[in-house]
Amino acid sequence: MNFKTIEWKEGKLILIDQRKLPQKEADFICQTVAEVAVAIREMVVRGAPAIGVTAAFGVALAARDSKASTFSDFQRDIESACDELFATRPTAVIVGWGLERMKRCCQQGESLTVAELKKALLREAETILTEDIEINRQLGKQGAPLIPDNGTVLTHCNAGALATAGHGTALGVLYSAREAGKSFQVFADETRPFLQGARLTAWELAKNGVDVTLITDNMAGHFMQKKAIDCVIVGADRIAANGDVANKIGTYGVAVLAKEHEIPFYVAAPTSTIDLKTPTGEQIPIEEREPQEVTHFYGQVIAPQGIQVKNPAFDVTPHRLVTAIVTERGILEPPFDKAIQKIFDQS
Amino acid sequence: MNFKTIEWKEGKLILIDQRKLPQKEADFICQTVAEVAVAIREMVVRGAPAIGVTAAFGVALAARDSKASTFSDFQRDIESACDELFATRPTAVIVGWGLERMKRCCQQGESLTVAELKKALLREAETILTEDIEINRQLGKQGAPLIPDNGTVLTHCNAGALATAGHGTALGVLYSAREAGKSFQVFADETRPFLQGARLTAWELAKNGVDVTLITDNMAGHFMQKKAIDCVIVGADRIAANGDVANKIGTYGVAVLAKEHEIPFYVAAPTSTIDLKTPTGEQIPIEEREPQEVTHFYGQVIAPQGIQVKNPAFDVTPHRLVTAIVTERGILEPPFDKAIQKIFDQS
Repeated sequence: MNFKTIEWKEGKLILIDQRKLPQKEADFICQTVAEVAVAIREMVVRGAPAIGVTAAFGVALAARDSKASTFSDFQRDIESACDELFATRPTAVIVGWGLERMKRCCQQGESLTVAELKKALLREAETILTEDIEINRQLGKQGAPLIPDNGTVLTHCNAGALATAGHGTALGVLYSAREAGKSFQVFADETRPFLQGARLTAWELAKNGVDVTLITDNMAGHFMQKKAIDCVIVGADRIAANGDVANKIGTYGVAVLAKEHEIPFYVAAPTSTIDLKTPTGEQIPIEEREPQEVTHFYGQVIAPQGIQVKNPAFDVTPHRLVTAIVTERGILEPPFDKAIQKIFDQS
Repeated sequence: MNFKTIEWKEGKLILIDQRKLPQKEADFICQTVAEVAVAIREMVVRGAPAIGVTAAFGVALAARDSKASTFSDFQRDIESACDELFATRPTAVIVGWGLERMKRCCQQGESLTVAELKKALLREAETILTEDIEINRQLGKQGAPLIPDNGTVLTHCNAGALATAGHGTALGVLYSAREAGKSFQVFADETRPFLQGARLTAWELAKNGVDVTLITDNMAGHFMQKKAIDCVIVGADRIAANGDVANKIGTYGVAVLAKEHEIPFYVAAPTSTIDLKTPTGEQIPIEEREPQEVTHFYGQVIAPQGIQVKNPAFDVTPHRLVTAIVTERGILEPPFDKAIQKIFDQS
């Protein structure tokens, strides 16, 4: 990987500033929990795993700065840092998992001194970061055999190193396939309205020497029709117990096109993305985001004033359109409800 | 229609400046053939029928300004004006049909005085404009019964009044349906990369009081899945003898999605769009446009420098995905090869 999404170095949290990509590669340095909260709120960092890891370091920084001398005061400082970080994003659930682990780590350290607790929390954040990369590398290795040698892969949105602590999920599979000696090219959908494909996926693939071509979302069908695409691989925001996949808006359309052209459609996501408490995709709430993302473009208005807009951030791809789900623990194949149950029964 | 795309008034050609829409409604006034050439080249006016009509008035202006006193000198001036106008757009074929009619009108006037010829050419341009609107109104009337009352219609790109001398083709059907007393709402795809949907379709529908909602191209599948779309209607750039339809990039993807959801997919186009010399869609050349349309947005770069880009301007929708083709001479239904042949046999 020719860049680091999240790095802990000499007592500072260093993030690549994703707001400035692809025009500029700049670091955003956080030395306090308040700075971490800004980084998450202002989208310096995005992607559920990357946010989770960043938030964990936010707690570690709050711990370092705590002036508490007793465990209960210290714990209060940690809880308050977690609340501050949790409030950074409207769909706060994605910030939660890193924070939960940090809280648990603190609770389990009641017998430690405050100085020891501070060290333990920093170690926990570092572990969360290392584990995230490790899980992605495992996932990548599992998925690599699916990538056709000398083929062309289509991806949508950014499920890459930039969305995680490193390596990535859908793009992690591609990086692993390349490490395994495969050669391929990638078509990246620009992914309107927020352009994660144009701004982030195209950037990180090119940065790492992967042959990438940028297209608008509405060109995918044309290139499938021309037999220019051999498989599709995307990430997932949430996977229901039956294998239905919630992911960035537009994923469903790509899946329908893939089926029409008999092209394999792969989803790459860690098992932590699978939510057994969600029976099917119908129960997944779809976040509606602000109309300005559609009507404006870097501050430039592109639509009539006051026009009605819909802006669902995600859509649901029914499991019948999914060829396989690549996880760090293996490739799940239909029937997905059984394959998913089996994975969880084993753990 | 609450605006005029092209108007001849007091010896001037008045165009609505489509480069400035939707932010600003401004006229672009042409008093010479050179100004008309600028208007076409700089995309003040776009859409094949609108360009054809505008070019015809360009010839009428050249005629008016001609200092010739003999027929052969006059004809030379007209030919030279036609050459100048024909060279305005790289895919010049779309400028051609208006010019051909003007040339023929001039040739047929050999017995007239130069003053009479000037009048005849202006009358011909006015006839071309009137006929274009009339054909669209006929087409609209034919298609109106297809629009579901109280339903929702999806459209792609701009096949509206702005693309023609007035009324429009796909949007003309909607205007006619409303005149027939129907009530409906429209979803408009923004239509990347050039945003004809966001900039033009959303504007002209809202301007005429049609209930319109703007979405990004990749949301169409989601709304079909949610049963929010009752039918699709689009225009066409060229229709092959077998009914295959070349239209703005992304049309094919919408057609596949419509089929998947069992939603009617209508194409609205005058019979002049049908090219019997093109047996199937495979013979239609797909224009590849400059990468900057994809990588830039109003001059703002949105993709990594030097990234590879594909930018096909059109795609081909195979006839098997088309429910019906609405023309000014009736609604064509499958098998399209026979229906098309029948229309041409009658003429």
